[in-house]
Amino acid sequence: MPDPPYYAVIFTSQRTPSDDGYEALAERMLELASQQPGFLGVDAVRDASGRGMTASYWTDLESIRRWRNQAQHRMAQALGRSGWYSEYEIRICRVEEVRRFHAAE
Amino acid sequence: MPDPPYYAVIFTSQRTPSDDGYEALAERMLELASQQPGFLGVDAVRDASGRGMTASYWTDLESIRRWRNQAQHRMAQALGRSGWYSEYEIRICRVEEVRRFHAAE
Repeated sequence: MPDPPYYAVIFTSQRTPSDDGYEALAERMLELASQQPGFLGVDAVRDASGRGMTASYWTDLESIRRWRNQAQHRMAQALGRSGWYSEYEIRICRVEEVRRFHAAE
Repeated sequence: MPDPPYYAVIFTSQRTPSDDGYEALAERMLELASQQPGFLGVDAVRDASGRGMTASYWTDLESIRRWRNQAQHRMAQALGRSGWYSEYEIRICRVEEVRRFHAAE
Protein backbone atom coordinates (compact mmCIF):
# COMPACT_ATOMS: atom_id res chain seq x y z
CA MET A 1 0.00 0.00 0.00
CA PRO A 2 1.54 3.37 -0.98
CA ASP A 3 1.60 6.45 1.21
CA PRO A 4 -1.47 8.68 0.88
CA PRO A 5 -3.02 10.28 -1.01
CA TYR A 6 -4.94 7.42 -2.60
CA TYR A 7 -8.65 6.57 -2.77
CA ALA A 8 -11.03 4.37 -0.77
CA VAL A 9 -14.51 3.09 -1.56
CA ILE A 10 -16.44 2.42 1.65
CA PHE A 11 -19.31 -0.01 0.99
CA THR A 12 -21.71 -0.55 3.93
CA SER A 13 -24.51 -3.02 3.33
CA GLN A 14 -27.25 -5.14 4.82
CA ARG A 15 -27.62 -8.64 3.35
CA THR A 16 -31.01 -10.24 2.96
CA PRO A 17 -31.44 -13.85 4.20
CA SER A 18 -31.33 -14.96 0.52
CA ASP A 19 -28.02 -16.67 -0.27
CA ASP A 20 -28.59 -17.94 -3.78
CA GLY A 21 -25.06 -17.92 -5.11
CA TYR A 22 -23.99 -14.80 -3.20
CA GLU A 23 -20.81 -16.16 -1.62
CA ALA A 24 -19.42 -17.55 -4.87
CA LEU A 25 -20.08 -14.33 -6.79
CA ALA A 26 -18.74 -12.11 -3.99
CA GLU A 27 -15.52 -14.13 -4.01
CA ARG A 28 -15.30 -13.91 -7.81
CA MET A 29 -15.82 -10.11 -7.67
CA LEU A 30 -13.06 -9.76 -5.09
CA GLU A 31 -10.70 -11.76 -7.30
CA LEU A 32 -11.68 -9.71 -10.35
CA ALA A 33 -11.31 -6.39 -8.49
CA SER A 34 -7.82 -7.36 -7.38
CA GLN A 35 -6.82 -7.78 -11.04
CA GLN A 36 -7.97 -4.29 -12.09
CA PRO A 37 -5.48 -1.49 -12.82
CA GLY A 38 -5.16 0.79 -9.82
CA PHE A 39 -6.34 -1.74 -7.21
CA LEU A 40 -4.33 -1.49 -3.97
CA GLY A 41 -6.14 -3.73 -1.47
CA VAL A 42 -9.34 -4.42 0.41
CA ASP A 43 -10.68 -4.84 3.96
CA ALA A 44 -14.01 -6.62 4.47
CA VAL A 45 -16.07 -7.64 7.51
CA ARG A 46 -19.59 -9.06 7.81
CA ASP A 47 -21.28 -10.01 11.07
CA ALA A 48 -23.81 -12.77 11.80
CA SER A 49 -26.76 -10.38 11.30
CA GLY A 50 -25.68 -9.71 7.71
CA ARG A 51 -24.36 -6.20 8.32
CA GLY A 52 -21.20 -5.67 6.30
CA MET A 53 -18.49 -3.14 5.55
CA THR A 54 -15.92 -3.32 2.78
CA ALA A 55 -13.25 -0.74 2.08
CA SER A 56 -11.38 -1.14 -1.20
CA TYR A 57 -8.35 1.01 -1.95
CA TRP A 58 -7.37 2.44 -5.34
CA THR A 59 -4.65 4.65 -6.77
CA ASP A 60 -7.06 7.13 -8.38
CA LEU A 61 -10.69 7.99 -9.20
CA GLU A 62 -10.41 6.83 -12.80
CA SER A 63 -9.58 3.26 -11.64
CA ILE A 64 -12.65 3.33 -9.40
CA ARG A 65 -14.83 4.47 -12.31
CA ARG A 66 -13.45 1.75 -14.59
CA TRP A 67 -14.15 -0.95 -11.98
CA ARG A 68 -17.65 0.41 -11.39
CA ASN A 69 -18.38 0.04 -15.13
CA GLN A 70 -16.63 -3.30 -15.66
CA ALA A 71 -19.14 -5.64 -17.39
CA GLN A 72 -19.17 -8.58 -14.94
CA HIS A 73 -19.18 -6.17 -12.01
CA ARG A 74 -22.20 -4.40 -13.52
CA MET A 75 -24.06 -7.70 -13.64
CA ALA A 76 -23.13 -8.46 -10.04
CA GLN A 77 -24.36 -4.99 -8.97
CA ALA A 78 -27.75 -5.66 -10.62
CA LEU A 79 -28.00 -9.05 -8.87
CA GLY A 80 -27.12 -7.36 -5.58
CA ARG A 81 -29.94 -4.87 -5.96
CA SER A 82 -32.45 -7.48 -7.12
CA GLY A 83 -32.07 -9.72 -4.07
CA TRP A 84 -28.90 -9.93 -1.98
CA TYR A 85 -28.93 -6.49 -0.38
CA SER A 86 -31.82 -4.80 1.36
CA GLU A 87 -29.76 -1.59 1.39
CA TYR A 88 -26.28 -0.27 0.85
CA GLU A 89 -24.27 2.94 0.83
CA ILE A 90 -21.16 3.66 -1.19
CA ARG A 91 -18.77 6.43 -0.23
CA ILE A 92 -15.90 7.43 -2.48
CA CYS A 93 -13.14 9.03 -0.44
CA ARG A 94 -9.67 10.48 -0.76
CA VAL A 95 -7.39 8.95 1.88
CA GLU A 96 -5.29 11.74 3.36
CA GLU A 97 -3.56 10.19 6.38
CA VAL A 98 -2.85 6.65 7.65
CA ARG A 99 -1.75 5.45 11.10
CA ARG A 100 -0.95 1.88 12.09
CA PHE A 101 -0.53 -0.13 15.27
CA HIS A 102 0.86 -3.65 15.70
CA ALA A 103 1.18 -5.16 19.16
CA ALA A 104 4.67 -6.40 20.04
CA GLU A 105 4.92 -10.20 19.72
CA MET B 1 -25.90 13.30 7.06
CA PRO B 2 -25.03 16.29 4.85
CA ASP B 3 -24.03 16.07 1.20
CA PRO B 4 -20.29 15.63 0.65
CA PRO B 5 -17.67 16.84 1.11
CA TYR B 6 -17.25 15.74 4.71
CA TYR B 7 -14.70 13.48 6.42
CA ALA B 8 -14.52 9.81 7.39
CA VAL B 9 -12.23 7.94 9.76
CA ILE B 10 -11.92 4.27 8.72
CA PHE B 11 -10.76 2.15 11.68
CA THR B 12 -9.93 -1.49 10.84
CA SER B 13 -8.88 -3.64 13.77
CA GLN B 14 -8.24 -7.13 15.09
CA ARG B 15 -9.41 -7.77 18.64
CA THR B 16 -7.47 -10.03 20.98
CA PRO B 17 -9.41 -12.73 22.88
CA SER B 18 -9.12 -10.50 26.01
CA ASP B 19 -12.46 -8.89 26.81
CA ASP B 20 -11.72 -7.23 30.12
CA GLY B 21 -14.19 -4.34 30.00
CA TYR B 22 -13.87 -3.80 26.27
CA GLU B 23 -17.57 -3.80 25.39
CA ALA B 24 -18.54 -1.30 28.08
CA LEU B 25 -15.76 1.12 27.17
CA ALA B 26 -16.39 0.78 23.43
CA GLU B 27 -20.03 1.65 24.01
CA ARG B 28 -19.06 4.60 26.21
CA MET B 29 -16.65 5.90 23.54
CA LEU B 30 -19.35 5.68 20.87
CA GLU B 31 -21.71 7.66 23.09
CA LEU B 32 -19.01 10.23 23.83
CA ALA B 33 -18.01 10.55 20.16
CA SER B 34 -21.62 11.20 19.19
CA GLN B 35 -21.65 14.20 21.55
CA GLN B 36 -18.57 15.85 20.01
CA PRO B 37 -18.84 18.93 17.79
CA GLY B 38 -18.70 17.95 14.15
CA PHE B 39 -19.84 14.32 14.64
CA LEU B 40 -22.16 13.17 11.83
CA GLY B 41 -22.61 9.42 12.35
CA VAL B 42 -20.93 6.04 12.53
CA ASP B 43 -21.06 2.57 10.94
CA ALA B 44 -19.50 -0.37 12.80
CA VAL B 45 -19.25 -4.11 12.15
CA ARG B 46 -17.27 -6.86 13.92
CA ASP B 47 -17.33 -10.53 12.98
CA ALA B 48 -17.00 -13.61 15.21
CA SER B 49 -13.23 -13.81 14.61
CA GLY B 50 -12.75 -10.34 16.09
CA ARG B 51 -12.07 -8.56 12.82
CA GLY B 52 -13.76 -5.15 12.90
CA MET B 53 -14.34 -2.04 10.81
CA THR B 54 -15.72 1.26 12.02
CA ALA B 55 -16.27 4.34 9.87
CA SER B 56 -17.09 7.52 11.74
CA TYR B 57 -18.16 10.63 9.85
CA TRP B 58 -17.25 14.22 10.70
CA THR B 59 -17.83 17.68 9.28
CA ASP B 60 -14.14 18.62 9.17
CA LEU B 61 -10.57 17.65 10.05
CA GLU B 62 -10.45 19.88 13.11
CA SER B 63 -13.35 17.93 14.71
CA ILE B 64 -11.46 14.68 14.07
CA ARG B 65 -8.32 16.13 15.69
CA ARG B 66 -10.27 17.32 18.73
CA TRP B 67 -11.87 13.88 19.22
CA ARG B 68 -8.50 12.18 18.79
CA ASN B 69 -7.11 14.31 21.61
CA GLN B 70 -10.15 14.16 23.92
CA ALA B 71 -8.94 13.05 27.38
CA GLN B 72 -11.16 9.99 27.95
CA HIS B 73 -10.66 8.92 24.36
CA ARG B 74 -6.88 9.16 24.84
CA MET B 75 -7.16 6.80 27.84
CA ALA B 76 -9.29 4.38 25.82
CA GLN B 77 -6.72 4.45 22.98
CA ALA B 78 -3.95 3.52 25.42
CA LEU B 79 -6.03 0.64 26.83
CA GLY B 80 -6.72 -0.52 23.26
CA ARG B 81 -3.02 -0.69 22.47
CA SER B 82 -2.11 -2.35 25.77
CA GLY B 83 -4.46 -5.30 25.34
CA TRP B 84 -7.67 -5.20 23.30
CA TYR B 85 -6.22 -4.87 19.82
CA SER B 86 -3.47 -6.95 18.26
CA GLU B 87 -3.40 -4.49 15.38
CA TYR B 88 -5.29 -1.64 13.84
CA GLU B 89 -5.17 0.86 11.00
CA ILE B 90 -6.71 4.32 10.91
CA ARG B 91 -7.39 6.13 7.65
CA ILE B 92 -8.52 9.73 7.58
CA CYS B 93 -10.42 10.45 4.39
CA ARG B 94 -12.33 13.17 2.61
CA VAL B 95 -15.70 11.82 1.41
CA GLU B 96 -16.25 13.10 -2.11
CA GLU B 97 -19.30 11.19 -3.38
CA VAL B 98 -22.10 9.12 -1.83
CA ARG B 99 -24.57 6.71 -3.48
CA ARG B 100 -27.37 4.85 -1.73
CA PHE B 101 -29.67 1.93 -2.47
CA HIS B 102 -32.79 0.82 -0.57
CA ALA B 103 -34.81 -2.14 -1.79
CA ALA B 104 -38.50 -1.44 -2.42
CA GLU B 105 -40.64 -2.73 0.44
